[in-house]
Amino acid sequence: MPRTGRRPGAGGTREKILAAARSQFAGHGYEGATIRGIAASARVDPKLVLHYFETKDGLFRMALDFPFDPAQAIPGLLEPGLAGLGIRLARFFIDLWDSPAGARAHALVRSVVASENAAALMRDFVSREILTRLAQALELDHPQTRASLAASQLVGLAMLRYVVKVEPLASARADRLARWIGPTLQRYFTDADAITPRVGSRS
Amino acid sequence: MPRTGRRPGAGGTREKILAAARSQFAGHGYEGATIRGIAASARVDPKLVLHYFETKDGLFRMALDFPFDPAQAIPGLLEPGLAGLGIRLARFFIDLWDSPAGARAHALVRSVVASENAAALMRDFVSREILTRLAQALELDHPQTRASLAASQLVGLAMLRYVVKVEPLASARADRLARWIGPTLQRYFTDADAITPRVGSRS
Repeated sequence: MPRTGRRPGAGGTREKILAAARSQFAGHGYEGATIRGIAASARVDPKLVLHYFETKDGLFRMALDFPFDPAQAIPGLLEPGLAGLGIRLARFFIDLWDSPAGARAHALVRSVVASENAAALMRDFVSREILTRLAQALELDHPQTRASLAASQLVGLAMLRYVVKVEPLASARADRLARWIGPTLQRYFTDADAITPRVGSRS
Repeated sequence: MPRTGRRPGAGGTREKILAAARSQFAGHGYEGATIRGIAASARVDPKLVLHYFETKDGLFRMALDFPFDPAQAIPGLLEPGLAGLGIRLARFFIDLWDSPAGARAHALVRSVVASENAAALMRDFVSREILTRLAQALELDHPQTRASLAASQLVGLAMLRYVVKVEPLASARADRLARWIGPTLQRYFTDADAITPRVGSRS
């Protein structure tokens, strides 16, 4: 987690930079947006942006208020190898939503659904920071497809468990839920037949 | 689809009844809300409610603006039997979102995420009209769990394809998507091991 850089009395400036960052990232994408442009839009010195957020990446993550740092979490999930990745990732995701950070995840879903700008930011972030990291570790064809299918199962679980609160998903224990959806994630990640149809089977 | 009952000049009354229905259903649930109570809240005669919406169920569906009628669609999906149900359901769901009705589905997601009331209505409707119908057709244990897990995969696909628009899910062809997620739904519906751990395997 980056330092938030918040100082007494500095809340207004920090929020102004974050608002400018959201607008610049949404308008120009992650690659197109610059610290200089964001600083100009917030009418502050670029050095002040770096003082608060250290890097463009840190600023981006704070602008999105993403509930965890994929650069830290994903290598840890991948480290024991691809075997068991599905259930580990399921458990990590459910524990995150069940924790206090779940409120930030919920707020993120709300803003992504309400705003095309937030959806564009989220798409950029998820593709670059999560799906690409997972895809690089996969050893089969179509890694980006595999990773995004796994993400779709996780996001759908979050919608039914935490947003719509459908039973029995809403009150199921984390370990049980992870056992239910873990094999789905694992199949998307490592089953040779999951993306391409079986060779020799036309049914 | 029920008749909408809309008549020239009657839009105001109909909308007033729908607003009252949303509030009563959200406050009292489907079972607790009554035509009489909704009529009183909208300050109209109960007969007028029935004139416009025919039944409490019809009113409920119109209040939610649900994009299809489960009473009609689900028996058709189940009719050929449980074999192949996963891919048929996936295709039905994707074709619905790809059609003009997709805009209504999108609006529904937006209101469910924005409002606890809409989430409560949706939960009630999905459980009663969709999950229970599917569960009744399943021949294994934990049918409600199976049906809601399948729903979680479908909802997550909708989120990533239509709301966040993550590639390659956003632009994949419907038949290909259905082949990717159909087996996941099928496993939840009909795999004996999907919900309960394998007997004799403790790994």
